[in-house]
Formats: sequence, structure tokens, C-alpha cells
Amino acid sequence: MRIHVLDRESGTLSQAWRYCVGTGRFELALRRDYQDSLALIQREIGFRHIRGHGLFSDGVGIYRPYEHEGTRGVRHAFTYVDQVVDAYLDMGIAPFVELGFMPAELASGDQTVFWWRGNVTPPRSWSEWAALVKATVAHLVDRYGLEQVRTWPIEVWNEPNLKDFWAGADEAAYHRLYEVTANAVKEVDASLLVGGPAISPGADEWMVRFAEFVCDRGVPVDFVSRHAYTSENPTLVPFGSYQKLAPATELLAQFALPREQLRGTPIEGLPVHITEFNSSYRPDNPIHDTALHAAYLAPVVAAGGDLCDSFSYWTFSDMFEEMGVPTAPFHGGFGLLTHRQIKKPTFHLYAFMARMGGRILARDDRCLVTRDENGRVTVLAWGDVSLSVPIAGQGAAFVLRSSVSEEAGNAWAAWKQMGQPRSPSRRQLDVLREVAEPARTHSRLPVADGRVELDLTLARHEVTLVEIDAVADETPPWWDEGRLRG
Amino acid sequence: MRIHVLDRESGTLSQAWRYCVGTGRFELALRRDYQDSLALIQREIGFRHIRGHGLFSDGVGIYRPYEHEGTRGVRHAFTYVDQVVDAYLDMGIAPFVELGFMPAELASGDQTVFWWRGNVTPPRSWSEWAALVKATVAHLVDRYGLEQVRTWPIEVWNEPNLKDFWAGADEAAYHRLYEVTANAVKEVDASLLVGGPAISPGADEWMVRFAEFVCDRGVPVDFVSRHAYTSENPTLVPFGSYQKLAPATELLAQFALPREQLRGTPIEGLPVHITEFNSSYRPDNPIHDTALHAAYLAPVVAAGGDLCDSFSYWTFSDMFEEMGVPTAPFHGGFGLLTHRQIKKPTFHLYAFMARMGGRILARDDRCLVTRDENGRVTVLAWGDVSLSVPIAGQGAAFVLRSSVSEEAGNAWAAWKQMGQPRSPSRRQLDVLREVAEPARTHSRLPVADGRVELDLTLARHEVTLVEIDAVADETPPWWDEGRLRG
Amino acid sequence: MRIHVLDRESGTLSQAWRYCVGTGRFELALRRDYQDSLALIQREIGFRHIRGHGLFSDGVGIYRPYEHEGTRGVRHAFTYVDQVVDAYLDMGIAPFVELGFMPAELASGDQTVFWWRGNVTPPRSWSEWAALVKATVAHLVDRYGLEQVRTWPIEVWNEPNLKDFWAGADEAAYHRLYEVTANAVKEVDASLLVGGPAISPGADEWMVRFAEFVCDRGVPVDFVSRHAYTSENPTLVPFGSYQKLAPATELLAQFALPREQLRGTPIEGLPVHITEFNSSYRPDNPIHDTALHAAYLAPVVAAGGDLCDSFSYWTFSDMFEEMGVPTAPFHGGFGLLTHRQIKKPTFHLYAFMARMGGRILARDDRCLVTRDENGRVTVLAWGDVSLSVPIAGQGAAFVLRSSVSEEAGNAWAAWKQMGQPRSPSRRQLDVLREVAEPARTHSRLPVADGRVELDLTLARHEVTLVEIDAVADETPPWWDEGRLRG
Amino acid sequence: MRIHVLDRESGTLSQAWRYCVGTGRFELALRRDYQDSLALIQREIGFRHIRGHGLFSDGVGIYRPYEHEGTRGVRHAFTYVDQVVDAYLDMGIAPFVELGFMPAELASGDQTVFWWRGNVTPPRSWSEWAALVKATVAHLVDRYGLEQVRTWPIEVWNEPNLKDFWAGADEAAYHRLYEVTANAVKEVDASLLVGGPAISPGADEWMVRFAEFVCDRGVPVDFVSRHAYTSENPTLVPFGSYQKLAPATELLAQFALPREQLRGTPIEGLPVHITEFNSSYRPDNPIHDTALHAAYLAPVVAAGGDLCDSFSYWTFSDMFEEMGVPTAPFHGGFGLLTHRQIKKPTFHLYAFMARMGGRILARDDRCLVTRDENGRVTVLAWGDVSLSVPIAGQGAAFVLRSSVSEEAGNAWAAWKQMGQPRSPSRRQLDVLREVAEPARTHSRLPVADGRVELDLTLARHEVTLVEIDAVADETPPWWDEGRLRG
Repeated sequence: MRIHVLDRESGTLSQAWRYCVGTGRFELALRRDYQDSLALIQREIGFRHIRGHGLFSDGVGIYRPYEHEGTRGVRHAFTYVDQVVDAYLDMGIAPFVELGFMPAELASGDQTVFWWRGNVTPPRSWSEWAALVKATVAHLVDRYGLEQVRTWPIEVWNEPNLKDFWAGADEAAYHRLYEVTANAVKEVDASLLVGGPAISPGADEWMVRFAEFVCDRGVPVDFVSRHAYTSENPTLVPFGSYQKLAPATELLAQFALPREQLRGTPIEGLPVHITEFNSSYRPDNPIHDTALHAAYLAPVVAAGGDLCDSFSYWTFSDMFEEMGVPTAPFHGGFGLLTHRQIKKPTFHLYAFMARMGGRILARDDRCLVTRDENGRVTVLAWGDVSLSVPIAGQGAAFVLRSSVSEEAGNAWAAWKQMGQPRSPSRRQLDVLREVAEPARTHSRLPVADGRVELDLTLARHEVTLVEIDAVADETPPWWDEGRLRG
Repeated sequence: MRIHVLDRESGTLSQAWRYCVGTGRFELALRRDYQDSLALIQREIGFRHIRGHGLFSDGVGIYRPYEHEGTRGVRHAFTYVDQVVDAYLDMGIAPFVELGFMPAELASGDQTVFWWRGNVTPPRSWSEWAALVKATVAHLVDRYGLEQVRTWPIEVWNEPNLKDFWAGADEAAYHRLYEVTANAVKEVDASLLVGGPAISPGADEWMVRFAEFVCDRGVPVDFVSRHAYTSENPTLVPFGSYQKLAPATELLAQFALPREQLRGTPIEGLPVHITEFNSSYRPDNPIHDTALHAAYLAPVVAAGGDLCDSFSYWTFSDMFEEMGVPTAPFHGGFGLLTHRQIKKPTFHLYAFMARMGGRILARDDRCLVTRDENGRVTVLAWGDVSLSVPIAGQGAAFVLRSSVSEEAGNAWAAWKQMGQPRSPSRRQLDVLREVAEPARTHSRLPVADGRVELDLTLARHEVTLVEIDAVADETPPWWDEGRLRG
Repeated sequence: MRIHVLDRESGTLSQAWRYCVGTGRFELALRRDYQDSLALIQREIGFRHIRGHGLFSDGVGIYRPYEHEGTRGVRHAFTYVDQVVDAYLDMGIAPFVELGFMPAELASGDQTVFWWRGNVTPPRSWSEWAALVKATVAHLVDRYGLEQVRTWPIEVWNEPNLKDFWAGADEAAYHRLYEVTANAVKEVDASLLVGGPAISPGADEWMVRFAEFVCDRGVPVDFVSRHAYTSENPTLVPFGSYQKLAPATELLAQFALPREQLRGTPIEGLPVHITEFNSSYRPDNPIHDTALHAAYLAPVVAAGGDLCDSFSYWTFSDMFEEMGVPTAPFHGGFGLLTHRQIKKPTFHLYAFMARMGGRILARDDRCLVTRDENGRVTVLAWGDVSLSVPIAGQGAAFVLRSSVSEEAGNAWAAWKQMGQPRSPSRRQLDVLREVAEPARTHSRLPVADGRVELDLTLARHEVTLVEIDAVADETPPWWDEGRLRG
Repeated sequence: MRIHVLDRESGTLSQAWRYCVGTGRFELALRRDYQDSLALIQREIGFRHIRGHGLFSDGVGIYRPYEHEGTRGVRHAFTYVDQVVDAYLDMGIAPFVELGFMPAELASGDQTVFWWRGNVTPPRSWSEWAALVKATVAHLVDRYGLEQVRTWPIEVWNEPNLKDFWAGADEAAYHRLYEVTANAVKEVDASLLVGGPAISPGADEWMVRFAEFVCDRGVPVDFVSRHAYTSENPTLVPFGSYQKLAPATELLAQFALPREQLRGTPIEGLPVHITEFNSSYRPDNPIHDTALHAAYLAPVVAAGGDLCDSFSYWTFSDMFEEMGVPTAPFHGGFGLLTHRQIKKPTFHLYAFMARMGGRILARDDRCLVTRDENGRVTVLAWGDVSLSVPIAGQGAAFVLRSSVSEEAGNAWAAWKQMGQPRSPSRRQLDVLREVAEPARTHSRLPVADGRVELDLTLARHEVTLVEIDAVADETPPWWDEGRLRG
């Protein structure tokens, strides 16, 4: 049945989908491939913030104790912080600051997470921790200005509800960490934004208790955060894993939960940031590389903004080393881009979103229809749909359709056909980049009674973007294509 | 019937197709759009030389007479020459020098050609002309070195057989011009390459008489040159024209003629340069913008190298002003690229040629088959064809197909659907550049008995490039796509 | 005597000096050297607007009459306008629109000005002229938005008081032109800014009569404009000229005149734009290339903003062809930069201004002292001066001094020492760019009682910029340079 | 006393000084700052090879054991190797391959060196080590071609004579490692170049025994290598160290030693590569940042090529982490450039060398005089000297002098004056880059009897480059600077 799209805007398209994107650990941002990828992402998508782990880990080198003439001192050093944040701002993206993990020399234990060994134990000195937090935040304010930094959310730690990420998943210890940290941030400036508890799925009670804790003790909190994933336990193979996925609606349910949980509490109405989401939480699951993945996430990205203030795709690039250095260009990494900038289908889902208009005309479970300030109507569809679309002007419309599917814009498929080269030649890289572009078709459709009739039939795992512009026809009266060959 | 391509190379693919490309008048090379376009051309095609008119015209400012204390002098100034030639060499392309037209102050008359008024009369002083030629060539040798400049052909004037280009089409005067000029060039260095007569089609007898003239008088000549076009007289409309085209084989016939004409003369065997060729000779004929044009020229570009030493497509860019400033992005210009780098189908014909291998395996009137030093087999096809292709290795081949046709890689068609916007917005320009890319498909075909069977069915006006690589399969034994969703 | 600079800001430093800069004719902006130069200018100086001649001249190709089926029509074509204005905005600079000269086919006569032949006769059809103006302004509004274009001043013609620029210097005809044009502009949108009469020096009575004319007839006018030069009649030599210059104060007197002339009229208080100024009005006077020139203009650039709303240096680049193609890199052109981006001393005068603070602390006839929002104090000096400068903080100040003079930052002097090569090699160009940088010295001065004592002794024709920053000393206690060698 | 430089070339200037340069560990080459710095280095200096540690360390991720269905396998993965070597070649520099250290999972112990923990124990499996070497070298040959890779020297391990770098400094174990490795390399292709023993200073007997070992057992060896440093034991302060330096001649003595040691052995005449040299071997000794350092090394760089086939400055950039992340821009790192591309004086010593001619005219202990193919004479001086220089042409010479000293081109001095900011603002970085440029002066000297008389007086710790070009004077007869002001 044809959807009759009304010529009436039903609201603003939330920008929650682009508010934030995830990244590998902080010092990876020093890399050229990382920055080349982020520049491309910003050019074609344009996220507002970026969030990752490891700001305080040893590879960034902030916390630097020393001894001089028998006295201990700590130098806080921002050599790499400056290089990274300067580069971010030059690319038009700002930090979503995550405070963690623990510098080895400030740690109370030696438990680490990941191949790159982030220390996940509480500080051995709470005052040195507070000093570290204050010095870091104050440095950002000094260098970039309060006006700017007060728009950068500051999140305390990552997934403290998991034993891998916080020694013993000790909730009381996390509450203490949160309180000390939030107070340290506010000592720099009361207008800075601080939040938590950054929990993983499956720990919903943490959110409730976090709310009670901050309310009871009057601890500052400007937003709450949690993560969302839909994969179950993995089956492992060398350099890879397979997982069963829950339906995509499960992601939306997770996005919605914090607002529900906070309802009726004193902190009802605080911004809710889903500071990580993806299908699988593993960086070696090939699902991330597929056309299926874009189709799976399309309804989530299109609708998530109704349920929370941001949901941050984990992560923008395969330059990510939680499980070590990848051994092949496609290795199931989270990235929208592989190393060396091969676009995955999910990249295009986001690039399509970036071409949508600012106002919603219609949506259902197969599509989203928007209009921009110039009257362009845009349809993002992930299921077959027939639409009657209102369009200003008369005569005709120019219709551009861009698609990714099993067949189109699917570099992973081409790479498999190539025999999965682990070290593709420069030529193979060029070919993979070429075939990673969406298929584009264009046509001219009649506008009758201010409407264009659109029938979209989708291929397997297709996500498609249709852009419809009224034609202002300048074809001169003497144009006669029949005379082209004389 | 299937062509059984033998596993035996039948010769080297001549590089005559890329030896030279045409350009608008010399000082247009100062422009940024021109240089951006040429950089793109060089990146994706890679011509060796570039040839255009107007080196001596007033806009370049070489010939600069003055008076001082009652005495007349001439300064030869190379301000713009240096800017242009430096830029050319930086882009990996070298001049094919054309000596002309006449500086106004050195001219014997005031007849001009083109909107930009190139003076086409003989010099009023032969000695000053000779001095101008010598100073210019000597300057090039000084700045760029003899080793380099002696590989740059130097051509005397342009189409002197036409009254529009040489006052009265005076053949004796041209012979004198040639002699004076060739001698001036050789006075700089005897190893420099000089040639003519640069005639247009329809003046075949000029070639014969030119050969007689240089042979009789012992005038230096290192190559001969002529042009080739296949269009008849135009029907004009505002800002455009239509012309009947002869079959493409007519171009090949014109390419072949000089060798035939010189056979048996003392200069038999001299290099033959077709220093301009195209379908229509008019820069306002929409044929140049079409998919038909690529299909029309494909057999010419594929086979022309058998018949001459170079054939230079006229011209690489629509930045060209013989009839004034274009009034729309598509206006029937000669360019492989429009202003602002929208690729036309004929661009891709050349880009496809640039991806062919160096050795010929087979060819007929629908296709050309080559192989490169890595064993990659490449097919350029402009008609339906079935092939059995020898391929090293076994198991499988990765096949990448790139196509332009009425539907694909045809920005002109999109522009017409848009209503022919004369001043496209930045967004429209982006869309036109997007849809100008070829359609790309990829597949994996079995290799049986060292062969891949290929069946190519082409769309209307399609030109297609098929690249076939043996697969070195690295897929690990544990790969099981069926487990992707758990 | 030492100037005791008070720790009190006496006002804002007017930005009139950077409001606008001049350029060669419109289509030169298509050139790469032009754009490279402008990009450099914007990076190191940052002008707001750019103004030049020839928008309507034939090289831009806007006015395009045609005939079709016996009827005459006019196409207005913006191919090059878009390329230029898009590029300007990408570089952060906007047009100061000058409407002129006359398209040949719309002209009532054939009188032209300059080597490039700008037609300077009135339109043969006032309605077609009005249509041309409206179409052009409306196109800019369409493409760039009214919000933006309404900040771009639109000036009617150039120096109509000179017979070379306006046939017969016919004042009544200019008034008619102004009225028709201003009305046409306002028909597009009443908020657009239009003005005139763009007169050259020596025609002061034109301004008075222009004011009377517009007031009497109620013709729209949003600003008035005139030019300022201080050179007398030239003595000519080949490719050059010499002129006697009036003192620089004469420029300031010319800047001040329009406000004086309008005082008491109904248009008192309108913005006054000096839409061209320089020492010499000739593009072949070597004075423009000298260190003397920077020193001569320094007090003008430092103080001009008190007297008018803008004064536009004529011109930013030597890419300028009023008298033909330059025959040498230094040829007395107006440019702040030569072709190929060799900086002249006057470039640095402007670059120094761009590093001044926003608030004035002091000034006199040898220097200007400012402070920025970070407390940095900046001194621009063109004469010997001793200053006591207030500086926040204590202990010490870091002082950076940058200078151009006969000896330093004077590429022209190096070029003369090289023997005035007309076609410098790439190496010579590199050397010229190297020696064109200012001399930089740095020191650390004590801050006593919140003051730094500064004694500036200048070399011949020196202009110097001194930047003084309070030192926040982080030198660690263990630092001991005496131990450097063990 | 004036040196009378004869007009006769006494030999070719050895390119040993630029044959190789050192770098921080392999994966640092993935960083953008690293690549920006290397690009700058290549543009202004142009080294041929680059050598650093850690190719086999875990951060590069080559050696990747796994288990599948109960069987152990090893994947050799080149993801980062390709990214780095592709980037190197794009910048015109090739690896000088160092094979080491030990992958953790292949190591026989857990002793590590450096903050980044390079494992320095022998392999637990010699066959797996040999397989790792073969796979890596074979991959390079596959990807880059044998013709290229056979010019890349391959060195076995680093400083095995030190217990920090090779467990127990076990000489027999090193000999075994060398033999296994050299044979593995030659199994890939016999034409590949392999060598050792890469010893540090103070272990001269290792070279002799290495020569005996390879000769006795017929182990392949294509070159020998050692290091050279002139600093004694350090005194430590927080984040820094001070050391006594031996005279610079000591470096030359170390360069000379291998040839002496090999004299009379069967491998006499093998190329000798000094694969690391510097004054101090510590990356936290401020000496590296000083003007003194350039002056100290100038005679070494000027003369070292007489004594060995290469001497590789350790290292090109401060992006180097042997002792952790630097806490300030100047921190005594080895780099020719700091992070973010501030040039140190020693950078300019190398940049000056890159501007020397190819033929030696004269040298002594204060200077080196060369001439290039265009007749330009170039003097590098590090002490006061008077010279009579032969110069082609007559009339005059253009003389460009570039200098670094305590006062000029000394960003470190400026940084100290600034108060040693550890996290300099963007403006401070810009200033530091500005003041890091050499002082440049230029003059015109008379040429009399084919000679220019040059008297060079140097400032404290000055290194100066003087470039002398004969002037081809094009100053026109009418030039009269006295008329400049009319």
C-alpha cells in the first residue's frame, strides 16, 4: 500500500545519531591512518563528539611522578593530549571526555584490560587522582577556553559494572570514584558537564542505584550514560568470532531504558547518552563488515533519537587494538572504515543520514522521509515501500538514488571474492575503495498535483537513500536531442 | 561465437593514444580549474605531452618591443611561459610545442581567429620572427635542459591550409615560415625535433607538397603532422551546433594517410603525429558530452596506434574559449572534463585504456584484450562479445567490470534530467561528479584448464573494462559464513 | 624621550585597514597563481572583502545576446562568476562588488581602457543595462543567500570623473548610470548596499554634486566611495616609470575628505569607503617593491581607520594586467606579493597589522601600541622610539621582534643583487622567498613594577613589530645550563 | 690567512652523510606527527634510508601464533608493516631493515628494554625465528620487488654486546642468531644484503671476532655495522640528564675503526655502516637541542664520508619513546625536529649539507668548499675563515649566507626565554617555528680575476652556509634607482 506522505512536517529530525562516535584508545588518535579516516568521516558524515578509552593510561603520558632531592613530585604532561585534541578540533570534532583508566604508578593493583593493558584498579591515592583530574580538565579549559570545554561532556570511567573494567566490579568503589571525580571537575568550573555511570548492558540496577547515590549525597551530575549491544556469547575461531544477535529493536529498548529508570527521580530529565552501541561488542566479528549490518542498524539509527540524547556508534575506524593488531584489512572490526579508508556499508548508512533534511515528513518501520530548507525531500529506506511524496514546484523532479546492498557498495564481498588477501596490494586497495562506493542511479519523475510517486524495491540487505529535487527547467526551446548525430 | 584468446602475446600495445592531448590556448593553463583538471587527468590517465595554440599570442606576453633613447628593442619575456611549463612538468606532462600565432606587433596584418583574437598573418619581419623562435626555444633549453627539451616535438603553426588560420591559406608563405622557423630551432640545437605542416583534414595535397619542399631544399624535418575530424558542416542553434558524423573508421583512415603519402619519399619513416583529432571540430557540439561519443571513439583509441605515432585528443578540458566563455557546464565542449571536473564518458574511455596491460593478447572490432607483467588480463569492449581468456593460476579469478553507458557514468544525462541548470549549485556539482563515475561490478569466476569464460553483453552505448586477476586464495579453513548470525 | 604607555585602553583598533583589498580584473581570479597568492594573504593577513574591475567585461562572459528564430534574446551566464566567487568564499573573503565596465555588445561606443580593453562607454540600452545588473545581483543572492550578499557593498562604476574610465567623464551620464543601477539593485532587495561615485583624487567637486544629486532625487545610496593616491605625473622608461610622491599625510587627508564633504548634508554619516589607495597609481613603478614603501605607508595603515570606514590597498597581487603581461618578477606592480608569492615589505606591514591586538594603548607619529584579550602588548613602529610598556604578570616578558628594512625581508634588494633576472630559476625563486621573510629576534626582558622598558632603534626604512608576552615561568628548579657539557 | 681555493675539483662529496637516518621504534612511523616530520625532512634534506628498532616487537603485530582444532599455527601479519613501508616509499626513503627484537610469544625469556618493553632474549625456537625472518623478507620482496629490496641493507639485531639489548650480551648466542638469520635472508634471495654485528662503542673486539666467525664458517655477510657516541656516564635530574662529551674527533675515530679492523681479513673492503651516531646516547640530554650541537657535529658530518660508507644520525625526530612520552617540546630528544616540527640547529646543519655541490674544491678543519654542476660554489663553515673562491663568469657574484648560532635559528633559546612552556599554545608553536629558521643575509661581491674574496667571521656556535652564484646581469641600461622617489 502506498504511503501518502503529508505535506506537513511532523517534527525536527533529532541529531542524536551524530552527537558522538566511538574511537579506539586515546593515543591511536596520533596516527595518520586514524586522522585520515576521521577527516573522511567528518567530510562525509560530520559527528560532533568523539569518545574513547585510555586518556589516563600510560601511553598518553599525563601522570609523571618523579623524585628530586629526596622529594616526590608529580608532573602532569599534556604533550600527546594537545596533539590529539588540536587535531580533533581542526577536524571539527570535540572530545566526549572519558576519565580513565588508571596510570600504572597511581594504581592500587595491577589488573589490566585489553591487549594494550589498561589498568582498571582504583587509585592508590584519592587526592592524587583528584589532582590528576583537575589538572587535566583545567588544562583543557586553559588551552581551549571555558566556553568550548563546557560543551564537552565528561564521563567517569567505563563499564564499572564489569569485572574486566573495574576491579571486582565494586559498586561502592565506583560511587566513591564518581564523587571524587565529579567534585574535582566542578572545582575547575561549576558549569562543566559531568556524568556516569557508563554501564554496559545487563546491569540495569546500577543505574537506579547511581541515581539514588548522587541524589542522596548531592553529588553533581549533568547527564547519565550507558551502553547498548545486542550480541550473545561468542563462538571463537582464530582471529575471529561468531555471535547470535538479538533483533535490532532490542537496541532501541536499551536506548529507552535510562529515561524510564530516571522517571520520577530528582534527576528525571537529565540528558541520556548511550556512549557506546553496536550489534556485537567484539572487534573480531565479521558482522560489522557486512551489508546486513547496515540494514540491521538502519531502523535504529533512524529512530534512536526519540529515545535518548545521543547514541554513539562504537567505533568510527578499525584502527583499534583491544585484541591486538589486526591481521587482515577485513577482520570484523567495529570501524565504519577499515584501515586505509575502505568504506563499509554501515559507513554509508551514516553518510545517507547526513544527507537527510532537518524536518520529518513521515516514517514507519521501513523508511524515514524528511525535507530540508530548500524543499528537497529525502527518503531513507531499508524495506520495500511505495510513497506519494509532496514536492514543491511542478513539472518534474530529479531523483537520485544511492544504495548499498549485498551487491553494491560492499567491499567485503569483493575482498572475499579476491580470496581474502591479508596484505592487499596497492592496486587491490584501490579496487576495494572503488567498489565500496554506493550504486547511484538517477531519473526524472513527473510531478503531478504537487506529488511524485515513488516505488522502492530493495535488493537483499539494501539500504537506500532517495533524494528528490524539484526541477527548475532551463532547457532552451531549441534543444533537440534527435539532431545529435546531424 | 566465443573468441578463444590464445595464451600468446601478439605485440606491444602502442602508447600512441597517450602520447599527446590537446588543450585550449596557452594562457588558459594559468588557471586553477585548468590545473585541477589536468592534475586529475594525469592521475587517472597520464598523457605524455600537451599541445595547444597561442604560445606567441599577446596574452602570453613574450614579444615585447620598446623604445629607449630613440632606438627600438625587443624584450622576450617568459613570465607566463615559465609558470605554465613549470606547472606542466610538476604534473608529469611536457609540452608538444606549437609555434604560433603572431604577436600583434610583429604581424603584417590584423586578421584574427577565435573569440580571443589570435593573429594569423605572416610576420612583418622574418628576422624578428626567427629571433622570437630562437629566444623562446633557447629559453626552454636553458630552463629545462637540452636532454629534456629535445624530446619535446616543435610544430610550426596550425592548419595553415585554412584561411581562418593562415592569411589566404598561402602555401608558399607557409613553406617560407616553416623553413625560417625550422632553421631557427636547429640553430639552438641540431638535436631538437621540428615538424609540420599541421594541416586540417581535406588538404591532403599539402602533405605531399610539404614533403617535396623540405626534401628539395634540405629543410630540417623530424616529424610530420596533420589533424583528423569526422564531422560535416554544422547546423547552428544559439550556443550550440549539430553535425552529421562520418563512421569512426574514417578517423582511422585519416590517421593512416600520412604514412601512405610519405611512402617512397626521402622522408618515409618519419614519425607521424595526428596533433588533433575528435569527432566534431566544434566546441559547442553536445556530441562530446555523450556516452555515444565514448562508444564511437573506443575502436579508434584502441587501434589508432597501429597507424601513426600519436593521435592527440582535442582537448582534455572544457576550459577552452575559442567561441567565448561557455554559458553552461555542459555546452558541447571538447573536454574529457567539464569545468569543475565532471568526468564525461570519453574521460573513462581513456581511463580504461590507462588500466590496460602492455601486451596485446587479442583484438577485433568489438574488443581489445591485453595482459600486464603481473598476469592480469584486461578486456576493453565496446560490443557484445564472448571470450575464453587464458589466466595463470587455477581455482578462481577475481573479475572487476567498470562501465559507462547511457545509464551509467553519464553525468550529461543527469544534467538533462535536472533541467540543464546553467549555474549548478555546489550540491548539484557534487551530484554530477558522483554520477559521473563508472558502474562497477565484481564477481569471482572459476578458472578451468587455465581459462576463464567471459560473456559480455553491453547496454546502449556502453564501453566496458574488465580486469581479471587470478585469485591467490588466503581464506582460512575455519571461515564459515553460515555462522555469521551466530 | 620615553613614552610612558598607560595601562588603559583608549579605544578599539579600527579594522578599516583590512575591510577590503584591491585586485586585478575579475577573470584573473580564475588563475592558480592568483588563488595561491590570495590563500597566502588570507592565512597571514585576512582581508574581509576584495574589489576589482571588469565584472561585466567580455572576459567574464555574463552578457550574451543571441538570435533564435528571428528574435533577439539575452542570456546572462555566470560560469566564471561562480568559479570566482565560490573560490573567494572558500578563502574567507567576500566581494566588494564593482559594477562595470560595459559589455562590448551592450556598449554605445568602442572606447576602451587598459591593455585588456575594458569598454568605458554608457550602455546603448538602459533597460538592458538594468536587466544585466538585476540578473547579476539576483544570481548572487540566489546562490549565496541574501543574508550574506547584503553585507557586500555594491559600487557603481570606477572613476567616472576620468575620461579614460568613462567616456567624456560625463557627469550627467554617470548620475543617470548611478540612478538606474541603484534602483536595479534595490529592486532585487531593498536591504542590499549600493554606493558611488568611486572617484579618483582630484575631482572633489564630484562628491559634492553626487551628494546633491542623490539627495535631490531620492536615489538610494548606502555609502560613498573615492580613491587616494599620492604620486605625480610619471617619467617613463621602458617597462617602468618614476614619480614624485607627496608625503604620506596627504593620503590621510584624502581619506578624511568625504566625511568632511558630507558634513551637514542629508547623507552625513554614511559609511565612507576609500575603495583604492596606494602611493603611485601606476603598476610599473618600482616604489611598490621597496622597503621604503612599507615605511611610507606604515603611519597611513596605522591611522587611516580614524578617518574612514575602509581603505583598500590597491592591489594584493602582481597578477594584474592593466599594462600587459609583466616582463620580470619585480616590475613595480601594486601587489603585496609578486607572481609566485614572493612577499614584498608592504606585505609584512599588513601581516604585522594582523598580529596587533584589538585595543589601542597608545600611538604617535612613530608607533602604534595595542593589547589583545590575552594581555599581549604589541608595538608597530616605523621610527625610533623608547617606550615603557605596562605588562600583566611579573618577573619577565618574552619579546619577539620582526622587522623588514633595506636589509631584512627585502627580496627586491636581493633580486637586484642577483642581476635582476627576468626569468628566475626555481632555485632563485626559492631564495627570493627565503630572503623575503622578516628578520626575527627574541629576548627576555625584566618586568619591573608591571612594566617593560623598550628601546627601539630602527634601520633604514625599517618597519618593526614587537610582541611582548608575560612569561609564566615553568623552568624547573633543577635546570642548570652550566652542566650542559657535563 | 686566506685560503686560496684552487679552481680544481679534488673529488666527489661522499653522500654517506645522507645514506641513512635513525628513527624511533617501528610503529611510531604510523603516527601523523612522525610522517609530517619525515616529509619535511625529506623535502629539505633527503635521506636515502631509515633505520630503527622494533620491527618484530609486539606493537607491529607480525608474529601471530594461534590454535585451531588442536593444532598450533603461526600467521605472519603485515598490516602495519605495509602501512609504514608504503608511507616511507611515498616520501622517497627506504628501510635500512633492522631485524629485532623478539616477539613475546617467540621469546625464551621475559627481559625487556625500554619503556615500550622490547624483548631482548633469544628465540625459544630457532626454526620459528628463521621462518619469521624469511616470511618478512619474502613479503617485502613480494610487495616492493626484488630490484628495490636488494638495495635495502638488512642488519641483524641491535647492540648485542650490551646486556640491556641482548640477554647476557651472549656473544655465541649472537653469532648463532646472525648465522640463522643471514641464511634465512639468503634463502629468500641470494642478492639480498645482510650484515652485523651492530655493536655499540666500547666493544671493539666483537667486530674482530664477528669477522672471524663469519669467515671461518662461511656465513653470508654483505656489510658490517657499528655505532658511535661520544658521551660519558650521565648525571640524572628529573626528566633529564647531563653528560661530559669527548671531542668530536672521537666520533670520526669511531667511524674509521671498522675499516681498520677488517684490514687484512677476508672481508676487507666490505661496506661499513655506522648505523647510529650522535653525541649523547640519551634521549633526555638537552645538548641535542642546542646550537652548540650543530657546531660540534659540523666537522663530523662534513668529513665522515671519508671513513665509512654511511653514518646515520640517531634520530630524525623527537617522536621517540625509549624513556616514555616526553613531557615538554624541548626535552633533550635526539630529533632534528621536535614534535610538531620545530627545527633544531642540527636540522639546519643537515639542510645546509643538502645544498652543497657534488664536487669538493677544498676543505680544512673550519670549512668545506664544494661546487655543483652549474658552477655554484658553496661553503659550509663552522670556524672563522677567509677564502679566495674561484667563480665562473665575471663582474659580480650573488652571495647568500644562512646561519644558525646561539642567536639565530635557535628555537631552544627562545623557548627558554619563554619560560620553558611544557604545553606551548598554538601561537607559541608558531613563534618557535618562525624563530627556528636560519638568519639569511645576501650581498653582491665583485668577481676579480675569476675570484671572490670571502671573509667569514662566525658568531658563538655558528654554522654557516654560503652560496655563491655568478651574476648574469640583466639590469637594463635605463635603470636608475636614484629616481625612485621622482
